[in-house]
Amino acid sequence: MSDDARAFVPGHVTGFFTVDRDDDPTKAGSRGGGIALSDGVSVTVEQAAETTVELDGEAVEMEAVERVLSALRAEARVTAETPLPLGSGFGVSGALALGTALAANAAFDRGLSYNELVTIAHGAEVQAGTGLGDVVAQARGGIPLRLEPGGPQYNYVDAVPERARVEYYTLGELSTPEVVGGDTEALTTAGERALSAVVKEPTLPTVTRASRQFSREAGLLTDDVREVVADVTDAGGDAAMAMLGETVFALGTGLTDAGYDARSCAVYPAGGTLDE
Amino acid sequence: MSDDARAFVPGHVTGFFTVDRDDDPTKAGSRGGGIALSDGVSVTVEQAAETTVELDGEAVEMEAVERVLSALRAEARVTAETPLPLGSGFGVSGALALGTALAANAAFDRGLSYNELVTIAHGAEVQAGTGLGDVVAQARGGIPLRLEPGGPQYNYVDAVPERARVEYYTLGELSTPEVVGGDTEALTTAGERALSAVVKEPTLPTVTRASRQFSREAGLLTDDVREVVADVTDAGGDAAMAMLGETVFALGTGLTDAGYDARSCAVYPAGGTLDE
Repeated sequence: MSDDARAFVPGHVTGFFTVDRDDDPTKAGSRGGGIALSDGVSVTVEQAAETTVELDGEAVEMEAVERVLSALRAEARVTAETPLPLGSGFGVSGALALGTALAANAAFDRGLSYNELVTIAHGAEVQAGTGLGDVVAQARGGIPLRLEPGGPQYNYVDAVPERARVEYYTLGELSTPEVVGGDTEALTTAGERALSAVVKEPTLPTVTRASRQFSREAGLLTDDVREVVADVTDAGGDAAMAMLGETVFALGTGLTDAGYDARSCAVYPAGGTLDE
Repeated sequence: MSDDARAFVPGHVTGFFTVDRDDDPTKAGSRGGGIALSDGVSVTVEQAAETTVELDGEAVEMEAVERVLSALRAEARVTAETPLPLGSGFGVSGALALGTALAANAAFDRGLSYNELVTIAHGAEVQAGTGLGDVVAQARGGIPLRLEPGGPQYNYVDAVPERARVEYYTLGELSTPEVVGGDTEALTTAGERALSAVVKEPTLPTVTRASRQFSREAGLLTDDVREVVADVTDAGGDAAMAMLGETVFALGTGLTDAGYDARSCAVYPAGGTLDE
């Protein structure tokens, strides 16, 4: 048995989504679309006497991670590193949950399959209330379209077959539990409309256009984000808001062309995996 | 419209498989397990007056590729490059079919989704008789376990959540159409037994052990391959036969440790994608 293991999980900006509730957390989740990012989360899991979780050198409380470890009957020291900000729409908690599942499975020799680990991480996120679709998207990579909600046994995931440079710029945080826990009927209607537009024309420009429309229709677009998206459009670029955070993502050099000091990465084609 | 586009699709060694026939090529296929390889096929598609297909500088007849282009209503010059030998169990024809679908979709702006392109490539391979499960595995990447046959709308794919260095050594060719077109009842029974062993314990050593057993039970193990696999085992390594070819694949440095001049690559974690 190896005592420690390391996994990498891509970040994921959600452009649009629905809320699909179910008593069974492996059936609950969301439909929607987004982009998996080469900026992601590296997660190391080591056997330990007591579970601790550290993100970029700071101790953090992460209910989803604790639930994953408890499902795997593991006490571990989890240390994660990421260039992505927490609570800003990059799926950091989902990446931590999935990365912990992959690395703990290896470190503790649990012998579970990929989909079993995704199911555990997805269920943990749903039960913690910190995400509905990130884990599934981060297990797919690329530009995932989640056509049916839930974990791998119930969902159906397609993708936009493209690659691109992606830039992002964060203005602040938004609370996923607050938005997802409230009345989500209008949001889900807007999410379904966006998804059906992208299914009809699965290309990157349709993803960003549908995402912009979703953020307006769902009432989630903040004034600050609206302004940045407009600046990118004025500069000839293509941008939208990342759900759920005060974050703008843009294709190509959209944000830097508009004068923003944005971070750049790229579509990450693979799902989360153990390191070599 | 861009006039040309390029895609990369990983190679895929199949360790064990079933033959699942169906009149609908998107439902037909196979269950089984294998390893997607970082050695793969780069496919460039350019618009042309007449369709031609070139592999490593030589004109080739590739029914699956022609079927893909015809489904996409495209006349194109297809040029492919690969370090992998053809007809030796690496899924080169599947990679060419999927790579052509991905690149032609971009070059001709066809606006299809990833799963639609996989379905077209899978159906083309099945109808050409050159493969049953490679395309689906090459669209997943990693160490795919195909639990249900067919294209993305019907199948169910899981994976072994590991990474590894992989070596391979080829002694000769085997004909996929000949094996797959004949009586496959015993082969399918052996394939189901292997798959259920790996589902019970989804780890790489189980994949190679189940693959060795499958090659014996299915009556596909040749004397030459048997000898190489035994040499690797004697040297403390772990190897099996790639279906369908006179090819041995080994984990880690198994083949070089046994004195063979093997080529080395690695598990490739992503499915086939357009180049950036």
